[in-house]
Amino acid sequence: MAKNYTDLWLHYAPIQSADADLFRTISIPAGTSPILANAIDELRTASEGLFGFQPEFVLVESDHGIALAVDESLPTQNEGYTLISDSRKLRITGKSYAGLLYGVFAALRMAATKQSLKNQNIVESPAARWRVLNHWDVFSGGRAPVASDAAGLVARPRRYSIFYQGDDIMSDELVRDYCRALASVGINGVAIHNVNVVGNAFDFITPRFYRQLTALAELFAGYGIGLILPLNFASPIVIGKMETADPAVPEVEAWWHKQLAELNENVPNIAGYVVKADSEGFPGPFVYGRTQAQGANIIARAIRPFGQKLFWRCFVYNCQQDWRDTTIDRARSGYDNFQPLDGQFEDNVILQIKNGPQDFQVREPVHPLFGGLEHTHEMLELQIYQEYTGAQTHVCFLMPQFREILDFHTFARPEKDTVADVVGGRTFGDYENSGICAVANANATVNWTGHDLAAANLYGFGRLCFDPTLDPDVIAREWIVQTYSDDPLVVKNLGHILGTSWLTYEKYNAPLGLGWLCNNGFHYGPGPDIYEYDRWGTYHRANWKEIGVDRTSRGTGYTKQYHKELTELYDNIDTCPENLVLFFYRLPYTYVLKSGKTLIQHIYDTHFEGVEDVEVFVREWDELKGHVPDDVFERVQKKFQDQLAHSKEWRDVINTYFYRRTGIPDAKGRKIYE
Amino acid sequence: MAKNYTDLWLHYAPIQSADADLFRTISIPAGTSPILANAIDELRTASEGLFGFQPEFVLVESDHGIALAVDESLPTQNEGYTLISDSRKLRITGKSYAGLLYGVFAALRMAATKQSLKNQNIVESPAARWRVLNHWDVFSGGRAPVASDAAGLVARPRRYSIFYQGDDIMSDELVRDYCRALASVGINGVAIHNVNVVGNAFDFITPRFYRQLTALAELFAGYGIGLILPLNFASPIVIGKMETADPAVPEVEAWWHKQLAELNENVPNIAGYVVKADSEGFPGPFVYGRTQAQGANIIARAIRPFGQKLFWRCFVYNCQQDWRDTTIDRARSGYDNFQPLDGQFEDNVILQIKNGPQDFQVREPVHPLFGGLEHTHEMLELQIYQEYTGAQTHVCFLMPQFREILDFHTFARPEKDTVADVVGGRTFGDYENSGICAVANANATVNWTGHDLAAANLYGFGRLCFDPTLDPDVIAREWIVQTYSDDPLVVKNLGHILGTSWLTYEKYNAPLGLGWLCNNGFHYGPGPDIYEYDRWGTYHRANWKEIGVDRTSRGTGYTKQYHKELTELYDNIDTCPENLVLFFYRLPYTYVLKSGKTLIQHIYDTHFEGVEDVEVFVREWDELKGHVPDDVFERVQKKFQDQLAHSKEWRDVINTYFYRRTGIPDAKGRKIYE
Repeated sequence: MAKNYTDLWLHYAPIQSADADLFRTISIPAGTSPILANAIDELRTASEGLFGFQPEFVLVESDHGIALAVDESLPTQNEGYTLISDSRKLRITGKSYAGLLYGVFAALRMAATKQSLKNQNIVESPAARWRVLNHWDVFSGGRAPVASDAAGLVARPRRYSIFYQGDDIMSDELVRDYCRALASVGINGVAIHNVNVVGNAFDFITPRFYRQLTALAELFAGYGIGLILPLNFASPIVIGKMETADPAVPEVEAWWHKQLAELNENVPNIAGYVVKADSEGFPGPFVYGRTQAQGANIIARAIRPFGQKLFWRCFVYNCQQDWRDTTIDRARSGYDNFQPLDGQFEDNVILQIKNGPQDFQVREPVHPLFGGLEHTHEMLELQIYQEYTGAQTHVCFLMPQFREILDFHTFARPEKDTVADVVGGRTFGDYENSGICAVANANATVNWTGHDLAAANLYGFGRLCFDPTLDPDVIAREWIVQTYSDDPLVVKNLGHILGTSWLTYEKYNAPLGLGWLCNNGFHYGPGPDIYEYDRWGTYHRANWKEIGVDRTSRGTGYTKQYHKELTELYDNIDTCPENLVLFFYRLPYTYVLKSGKTLIQHIYDTHFEGVEDVEVFVREWDELKGHVPDDVFERVQKKFQDQLAHSKEWRDVINTYFYRRTGIPDAKGRKIYE
Repeated sequence: MAKNYTDLWLHYAPIQSADADLFRTISIPAGTSPILANAIDELRTASEGLFGFQPEFVLVESDHGIALAVDESLPTQNEGYTLISDSRKLRITGKSYAGLLYGVFAALRMAATKQSLKNQNIVESPAARWRVLNHWDVFSGGRAPVASDAAGLVARPRRYSIFYQGDDIMSDELVRDYCRALASVGINGVAIHNVNVVGNAFDFITPRFYRQLTALAELFAGYGIGLILPLNFASPIVIGKMETADPAVPEVEAWWHKQLAELNENVPNIAGYVVKADSEGFPGPFVYGRTQAQGANIIARAIRPFGQKLFWRCFVYNCQQDWRDTTIDRARSGYDNFQPLDGQFEDNVILQIKNGPQDFQVREPVHPLFGGLEHTHEMLELQIYQEYTGAQTHVCFLMPQFREILDFHTFARPEKDTVADVVGGRTFGDYENSGICAVANANATVNWTGHDLAAANLYGFGRLCFDPTLDPDVIAREWIVQTYSDDPLVVKNLGHILGTSWLTYEKYNAPLGLGWLCNNGFHYGPGPDIYEYDRWGTYHRANWKEIGVDRTSRGTGYTKQYHKELTELYDNIDTCPENLVLFFYRLPYTYVLKSGKTLIQHIYDTHFEGVEDVEVFVREWDELKGHVPDDVFERVQKKFQDQLAHSKEWRDVINTYFYRRTGIPDAKGRKIYE
């Protein structure tokens, strides 16, 4: 069956392996389960690809081969597994069927990356209960988006989203293959629509979609994935034809109870709901003078009977700011809006908090709500969609960034105080309501992610959620070997590209944590002054002599939102991490950094260096011709050419912008356009 | 019959008039004509409103009252008329029925504005053959635009355009009333769609719309208005399913002949076509390596048998410019693309040229193609849509700007060399192919133009096309008295507002002809750096010490596109009009203007003054409470509040932008935000 898309890292290319014999006979436990059936299917596919034979599946365990088992007494979390082996036999045990599936995928990963499966004693639990993707796909319903060329000559409908085609929610082979990839890295929840719920997506919780959602949820369940639906807070008005969505009105809460009860009676296997309220024009409890907790709790109570979670986003800020008003600091808004509500949320509410106080910039500090909430469940929201990091045209492997975030000490407790601990339930002891999510980067395209190398972010995100202690370089290598091969040149060159790509992107983007030098709208490409007089609260206020906003205790007071160790760290320019110094300080262009360079020279130097880095990437990729499949080579080569041209655009716009401001020439006399 | 929209200036409010007796008996000529019928209808409606009685229409002329007549021997252009009267009788004679209709409207205007109709000897001809509106309405067909609030709560179809509702081209009462207004000021052509022809609008020249276009064209014809259809140059591909639209391919030309012949057999009364080719992504002959003349001529030849005109736009420029390339000057592009083709266009092609070389900025020089083409027909394209002049939220009465443009001496000939002469056929003797058009500002809203006062631009444009020697203040007064009343306070305050509004808008917009300090996209509101690194070729290249582009002979050479008297004028900074000095020169902020002020202080001063002017407008309008209808008062009061807030936004953004660049404080110590 020819597919018109890649197998991602489930490529299962033939290998020579001393472990092949293990796969000849596989015993399976008694009983049936859709997950078990999928695990067996995967073993069949993988063995055929890796070793050239299909396993014999038997019901009676013997002293050789592989034994699959489920054991509820396993000393792991519910989705944990063990891989126990000697030289002849490997036993894969899940605490649940989901755990077993993860164990199977772990074994296949080890086989495909040529790690020995023999004489192992592996015990694994996912580090956080919820490992979720948020798809920002938009369901257009009757108004499907069309592709058209610049001249408007061609207009034809096509499938953009993995989940939608025209009016329909899909659950076909494409979706199944996506589930396989997600389960292979431990993703266990998928929100299938943009948090901006508009138009026909309102109807997702109405009878119109019961049948199609049921099919999708069932497919998901077979891979241990929970279906998550975004909700619009104004649904009582739009769907319910009520006059209000005020959470304090009993009829409104009753409406949510009734609507969601009917939904759950008809659509089994829904795991939860995600809500963007009072954010960027979307309705929420603020419309009625209620708190975020009041808003969240009415929905949380409605779904509690079904054991479901409400993922409530904290991206709430004033998006109608007057740029002239310097008393407002958007970075403060998440903490200011939510910290005072600590403890007021129902127990099945999980606050979904972006990694930083801004919006997925290439570098920003960790959000102060992590560790700032002690009596409220928290989930980390990351982004692999690359909204601000190259839009899947630039290669930007984000695991090094994610590791920095996860390793960050919040000082909320003397120990187990990192972000990974907080959102893994280890700091405040609420594993069942812990989690990490990411805005997803996959669509219905030949390589799933637009840029073939962007799939490494999808892979890495899942792996890191499961085990936040993984080394980004190890993750990258796993992905490279499974996706392409262990050809040393491929591993070396691609490893270097992926491993350094984030810091390279940072070099030619906004310097030192400044952020927001991008275009508005799609946030792709430079636009260094575009946000300055706009309503979004993202100002650097650059003038002829200085740039940045003082967010210390002496300025907007943002630093006071952290625990005191961090307040002191950031309040002192000597201890403030220099790669964030323009987030926290307003500085003259002539300020001397620890490198001995002035700020302006640092900007020039990094922007030239960033392009030079990309030139290296281009060469490293070109060396891989013949070492990776030709179609992949050509697609990625084209992307690198785009990245090179566009990194020059970044370099030239940013350098010219600052040169035009300051009149200070480059100390090295390189070309800066007038 | 209650209408949900205003009567514009055809309000016909009761007046005391010594001329009322003239209207008691009106003789009409023998024969029938839809235009005559409409003229009679108008006289009936107007008399009822103005004088409180309906005229008696008779077939036999007597020695008193009004006599309507058509006389082909009249010494006027075809649409001319005479008003000849003594103390008892007024004879209105048209050289054609259209001329008669214009004469009737002229008599009604005189009556409504209390000019005596007695003892007159008026002979009038329109100063240009074509007086056209280009509607930039978009026909969405099956995908009607919907209105929705910010939260996406409401979605309902509505009628935005006068001409479209959903899938249909309309010819109902609303369209008829619009035709009345247009005919009353002498408009004789209307292009009913945006020159960006996309989607379902391709089908306008196919059988799908024959019936509806026929109805509309017939309605138009009854008011002397010719229907003009925009064409997409790629129609042979999109409609004709051909492989190419190359104008040198005989089958392509044959396709146009056949398609447009069939159209004309089925839809009578089409006056012409307008084409935007090779512009901003739209297809044209450049795609095939052909000239603009080759492209235009194949269509021109196809329509010649039907006596139709092809209005071919000259807004052709490189919209994919690299900002780093300072060798390209977009201002040069119109002349560079078209002047070498002078004389190569078929005789029924009229080049449609924007007033200036940029794009309807608040102030720019006159386009060098006026007077630069001697053997090619030219039409002036103006804009009352206020794309860059306040978007019908700011009041900006454009007749003073239009007069400056029309009065501009091109030096193409020793005399009769103004733009009005060139586009009126007086310079090169081609009246039949002369004309003026404007991008229209009317839609299906209660007051037609969003801002009630913006209707003065619709009125004024028509009047000025007919007679470019009219004083803008006289036009404004005519409009005020007909629309509201001759209440002295209304005339005084509104006259002041309209008369000074353009210069006020200029004060808080871009200074001294600089242009392009606006937002991209909708071009509404300030965005002083937004275009600097973009692809549109609209750069001011401001740095810490200077701003502007040298377009003199020493710079980009743009000034050499004019006749030598103007080249010399603009090449000398002492003779260059100072209100255009930043269009033609790159100057330091410390440059001293003739006023003795520095450039930077001029910018600060005008931006403060502009807001002060608007504060006066607000007071002047507030004084009119009770002097104009309450609903009008409130609508306009709200608009003025918006304008006041938004003029402050312009003031503060522009002042801050330049302060941040220069560090030079305001000499008067006023508030400039950091």
